[in-house]
Amino acid sequence: MPDYKAPLRDFRFLLEELLDAGAIQALPGYGEATPELMATVLEAAGAFVEKELQPLNRSGDEEGSVLANGAVTTPKGFKEAYAKFIEGGWTSLPCDPAHGGQGLPKMLHIAVEEMICSANLSFGMFPGLSIGAYNALLLHGTEEQKRIYLPKLVSGEWAGTMCLTEPQCGTDLGLVRTRAEPQPDGSYRITGGKIFISAGEHDLTPNILHLVLARLPDAPAGTRGISLFLVPKILLEADGNLGARNGVTCIALEKKMGIHASPTCQLAFDGATGWLVGHPHKGMSAMFTMMNAARLAVGVQGLGVAEAAYQGARDYARTRLQGRSPAGVAAPDQPADPIIVHADIRRMLATIRARTEAGRALALWIGRELDIAEKHPDAGMRQAADDLVALMTPIVKSVLTDIGHEAANLGVQVWGGHGYIRDNGMEQLARGARITESDEGTNGTQALDLVGRKLGLHTGRLLRQFFHPVGDCVEAASAKPEMAEFALPLAKVFARLQQTTAFVAELGLKDPEAGAAVAPDYLKLFGFTAFAYLWARMAEVALAKEAGDNTGFYKAKLATARFFMERLLPEHAASFAAIMAGKGALGAMEPAIF
Amino acid sequence: MPDYKAPLRDFRFLLEELLDAGAIQALPGYGEATPELMATVLEAAGAFVEKELQPLNRSGDEEGSVLANGAVTTPKGFKEAYAKFIEGGWTSLPCDPAHGGQGLPKMLHIAVEEMICSANLSFGMFPGLSIGAYNALLLHGTEEQKRIYLPKLVSGEWAGTMCLTEPQCGTDLGLVRTRAEPQPDGSYRITGGKIFISAGEHDLTPNILHLVLARLPDAPAGTRGISLFLVPKILLEADGNLGARNGVTCIALEKKMGIHASPTCQLAFDGATGWLVGHPHKGMSAMFTMMNAARLAVGVQGLGVAEAAYQGARDYARTRLQGRSPAGVAAPDQPADPIIVHADIRRMLATIRARTEAGRALALWIGRELDIAEKHPDAGMRQAADDLVALMTPIVKSVLTDIGHEAANLGVQVWGGHGYIRDNGMEQLARGARITESDEGTNGTQALDLVGRKLGLHTGRLLRQFFHPVGDCVEAASAKPEMAEFALPLAKVFARLQQTTAFVAELGLKDPEAGAAVAPDYLKLFGFTAFAYLWARMAEVALAKEAGDNTGFYKAKLATARFFMERLLPEHAASFAAIMAGKGALGAMEPAIF
Repeated sequence: MPDYKAPLRDFRFLLEELLDAGAIQALPGYGEATPELMATVLEAAGAFVEKELQPLNRSGDEEGSVLANGAVTTPKGFKEAYAKFIEGGWTSLPCDPAHGGQGLPKMLHIAVEEMICSANLSFGMFPGLSIGAYNALLLHGTEEQKRIYLPKLVSGEWAGTMCLTEPQCGTDLGLVRTRAEPQPDGSYRITGGKIFISAGEHDLTPNILHLVLARLPDAPAGTRGISLFLVPKILLEADGNLGARNGVTCIALEKKMGIHASPTCQLAFDGATGWLVGHPHKGMSAMFTMMNAARLAVGVQGLGVAEAAYQGARDYARTRLQGRSPAGVAAPDQPADPIIVHADIRRMLATIRARTEAGRALALWIGRELDIAEKHPDAGMRQAADDLVALMTPIVKSVLTDIGHEAANLGVQVWGGHGYIRDNGMEQLARGARITESDEGTNGTQALDLVGRKLGLHTGRLLRQFFHPVGDCVEAASAKPEMAEFALPLAKVFARLQQTTAFVAELGLKDPEAGAAVAPDYLKLFGFTAFAYLWARMAEVALAKEAGDNTGFYKAKLATARFFMERLLPEHAASFAAIMAGKGALGAMEPAIF
Repeated sequence: MPDYKAPLRDFRFLLEELLDAGAIQALPGYGEATPELMATVLEAAGAFVEKELQPLNRSGDEEGSVLANGAVTTPKGFKEAYAKFIEGGWTSLPCDPAHGGQGLPKMLHIAVEEMICSANLSFGMFPGLSIGAYNALLLHGTEEQKRIYLPKLVSGEWAGTMCLTEPQCGTDLGLVRTRAEPQPDGSYRITGGKIFISAGEHDLTPNILHLVLARLPDAPAGTRGISLFLVPKILLEADGNLGARNGVTCIALEKKMGIHASPTCQLAFDGATGWLVGHPHKGMSAMFTMMNAARLAVGVQGLGVAEAAYQGARDYARTRLQGRSPAGVAAPDQPADPIIVHADIRRMLATIRARTEAGRALALWIGRELDIAEKHPDAGMRQAADDLVALMTPIVKSVLTDIGHEAANLGVQVWGGHGYIRDNGMEQLARGARITESDEGTNGTQALDLVGRKLGLHTGRLLRQFFHPVGDCVEAASAKPEMAEFALPLAKVFARLQQTTAFVAELGLKDPEAGAAVAPDYLKLFGFTAFAYLWARMAEVALAKEAGDNTGFYKAKLATARFFMERLLPEHAASFAAIMAGKGALGAMEPAIF
């Protein structure tokens, strides 16, 4: 079974050496978030997930969450682990101190989330959903709602959900049918059925706060008629204590490919009492508050799985003896050499690693921008950071989840037939990673968000926040001979991204269907450029420090950077060709052809 | 759930219009195998798998095969379906009439195998393993062994297995430890443990013939000391009737990611009685008789899953309503348009289809060469066909299984979150396809076989059987203006294959590790070239027939050919770049780096 160890050295490299986490400390409210404190938190989180969450990962998947008489029992150990989780303050880490939170940077929280997902993806779903509910209430709730509910979500005493999907609609929420009837007391009666509700019912907390999309009686059709409601599982007495059970019931759990410990619920709302969150008919924008955060979080899930897959594959490759190195016997005292001597095994490991480390850099970079967007005293800086986050959210979600799934499958492949055996734990990573590519907007939907929405917003303003730093990096790196091996491939892919950006923008205006046709490849090309940029920057740091280092850390960084540039980055050529072909041959594949 | 319909039209297109199956009839022994007969057999096979095997696919996976007291019970319905399967003569189809077989072409058998695997991959494992045992006994068994055992395998009354892997060895069979002690009566006592034995124990047949790799007492170390033994589950009385139970026991079933209905057994051989098959210490070459056929068969498994995934995804895309076409409302009478209006959905469907149809053409082409290699009256023609089969076997295995897994995952993706739900049947395809990339030699091992063995055999003689027809096709197509859109991309990828072939051959001689480092990408480039060649040839046929056709079949072929050339073939550029980089940056990723 994979024995996960938190990649603390890499986190510190990124926070302290690449992303200047020290500057985060200068933001209002983050005075205490010194690099030292962040390192300490990361160490503690790593120790927690290794000791408490990882041991429940295999057993949790085999046992699964179970529904009986409307109540869901989580697998053995989950309840105890969750109690320790909230006792350790892990739910409150990024939350507002005004509601009991620790007020630590979101960048740091992303690193912690990665570790949780590496150790136990299913477990991570519970607090992950609560954070979504927290964000929605924080930004759109009334003062009273915040006062009553936020401290409970922050402490982890209660959990939250996002109730969006119905059988007839997932991507197209304009088709939501759940109804909300206003009551004389200002509350609403919520009636309808929701599906795919992660953590929709469970035994980790005595109460669950459902955030539910529904239609008011006078709602216009489509997405402009959706409102958001808060529907607690247990209603509160006037004194705030838990009272009567609300009219929401878990009627079934989905039998899924993976994440069996995470209960995916069908919920029946049968005249349940709820309260409006935000404005009538404005539920979609409140929902996107949850959704954008959830999309970044799902990307981080992919990243967490990728790291776990890397470690599991690497450890096996070091110890499994099979065949001999083509370069000559490597372990003469053994009956065979460890399979890590084989180039193809190292190719798979290096592929996972090069993408995972770049993906981690991307996630933490965007995490830093989240912090700047929220806290920076300068409005222009806040806006610029917010622009970058908005632009990169679909890319983080899509690219990192694809990486997670690819990494898990490469990990299975390194293990040969043994990777297919459940007890060995590798195939669980592949089954778990699979949902991340479909969750919270399929990766195809992300591409439409990027091309159809983000590219054109404010006449392309968002793009500048990516193009400027990348352009600066190309220019600076080109001036340094030792950076040539990184600067040249980065310059090439960046030029192609610029070329296709203009092309796609024009194409989409002329023919929206053609824009949609090239969107997934454009997103991929964007991801390749972001990774090339981050690898160039990481290589620059490593080049400066390699000489004085005897741990091998910077040497490995440089070798991985070179592997990325030489063996993985050329894949962007296929995306480039596909974009430049426009609708082309795909346009001729009409629905009737299939 | 996917509702699979056998792709009979495409089979007939390939057999009759592309591959000149009529010529097969001219081979000695195939006189009755007219195109009409083959079409009739395909229809019957399609009807059988749709009616008898497909309905057991989901239930079989949920129920799984179960071990109790050494006996394995297959899922409900499997035993009855298998009885109908042998009653229909499906096990005997490609077998030698001298042993009760129908003596039909292997090309036809490959088409039937594809359909079986589309409908029920787990079920297909049982007869698939029996064919492996049949082949080994047919080519290496004594006359007496053939007389006693072959008719039972041919009729399907008994089943077979391949017992190769042990806990310490899978890829490296030189590490096999199972022992065989000669007995005075000419038999051997077999003692040892085998793992990953598909269909190693079950209730479909009263007897199972295990073909077991083991070491004689005087065996040299490594692969030159491996012998092959026949070990029946039930020993025969002198009169041929079933007698005492032999000393082989199923001690555990593996819990796997998928193919739950197929029992993957741990077998304990405890002084079991066996008989030598072939010569002492020559078990590896006998094993490769089974293995090469098994590798092609595993490729066909991938193909079968790909077709099932295509159909499942297509049917869902036609009926799931979500959002509106960017080109304008397509279904004004519906609350939303079917998702097939979205370019990205069609991109995924077209990707599966373009690869599946080319993969099917490749599998049947190699099937035809198998028939020529066995039956052609001219020794030179037999050798040429055998060369092509040997060259292409690792490519068929690797490329088609990668396609199967990719197709299944794209199929899941088309279904969105619903693809992750077990009852919907799509994720089962992904879990099933996953093993094919590791089975019978991982795909990395296939690449080493291609570069390390097949390329250099007889100073490159094998390559000619692929390069000549492709070169001829480029030349002929280049002379026809209407073929230019196919000829040009084919010429380009073929030129790159030729360039890299020379490069890889030289590289491998100078530095075997560098040859191994580029092998997987070389195999991929080879696969792209084969697909481009087959699409060019299919397009040529379709161009000639499109005008007179009102079914849309040829129009769809051409549209898919164009999609392949424009959107998928450019991916080869990444493999080309990776090969030309040689060991390069991967070489610097030493084991200590990880």
